[in-house]
Amino acid sequence: MRLASLVFVTSNLGKLEEASAVLGIRLRHHALDLPEIQSLDLEEVVRHKARAAFERLGAPVLVEDTSLELAGLGGFPGPLVRWMLSTVGPAGIARVAHAFADPRAVARCLACAVDGAEEVFGPGEVRGVIAPSPRGTRGFGWDSVFVPEGCGGRTYAEMPPAEKNAVSHRRKAFLALRERLEGQAR
Amino acid sequence: MRLASLVFVTSNLGKLEEASAVLGIRLRHHALDLPEIQSLDLEEVVRHKARAAFERLGAPVLVEDTSLELAGLGGFPGPLVRWMLSTVGPAGIARVAHAFADPRAVARCLACAVDGAEEVFGPGEVRGVIAPSPRGTRGFGWDSVFVPEGCGGRTYAEMPPAEKNAVSHRRKAFLALRERLEGQAR
Repeated sequence: MRLASLVFVTSNLGKLEEASAVLGIRLRHHALDLPEIQSLDLEEVVRHKARAAFERLGAPVLVEDTSLELAGLGGFPGPLVRWMLSTVGPAGIARVAHAFADPRAVARCLACAVDGAEEVFGPGEVRGVIAPSPRGTRGFGWDSVFVPEGCGGRTYAEMPPAEKNAVSHRRKAFLALRERLEGQAR
Repeated sequence: MRLASLVFVTSNLGKLEEASAVLGIRLRHHALDLPEIQSLDLEEVVRHKARAAFERLGAPVLVEDTSLELAGLGGFPGPLVRWMLSTVGPAGIARVAHAFADPRAVARCLACAVDGAEEVFGPGEVRGVIAPSPRGTRGFGWDSVFVPEGCGGRTYAEMPPAEKNAVSHRRKAFLALRERLEGQAR
């Protein structure tokens, strides 16, 4: 599989922009909100989504999903974070995280390319903490409450896009995926 | 469709016992953990699950799913409550609910019978509040933190099973389903 031949299936334009910026190519794109299965296992969610996207489009596809694992909550909400975000917002996520003793969190992204014959995964992980309340105006989703390690205590939303894209869990995932796809092509 | 001809598809024996007790019949049962789709809309989750169960077994099936909607969190976690329970437990649910100003909650159950030709839904709803911490040893799931309205401030887990089954969201759902199925049969 070649990256340039894949169609990135997502309804989230923020993710499309980030992935294109990280990879330095204009990804082909199809806006489609695929049903996702309930699970705390990101790989299970992504595998199911990739197969559904491939069946739906009948062409090699690229999907990704994101997980925010709150240490104080035993990893919850994980891949279910979008529903927490849509109900309580970033401020609510911060409030929940700080109701427990441990504000640490892991932001995870898993990209997956599938063409029917095979699946290639690209994992990306960033450790950090949840801010006590939202800060910053950039980015999207829960960027305003996630403080990645080693970035001076700023949230993703306080970092210029290029700086966030240089360290983000999504960057790591897409670079890992590219590396594996290029390794195959050799 | 007749209730006695349906196979109750669930991997949760607590739910099987409750449903059988409420309906006063020994339901046929098939233990199967079906993938559920991510959504805050209980009907969407249950419809998808019912169709998957019917496809899998090739026979008329009965499924149900449960939702715990925390008022302070805009209805979160709703049908995703099982994942919150599996990570933070009932005590964690109580802690999260009380990190917000409003401890009210709605416990919802939606039963669904499907035979390929049609779907019949039975909704059940109970209003209440989330206790500050777990109380009681009966029941299962989040019974120890849900205090239904009009039951003297006790949690489900502090009530004898017969008493819980006389007021529960699951009872209401299964009785509503039976009524609709019997209405059809007339």
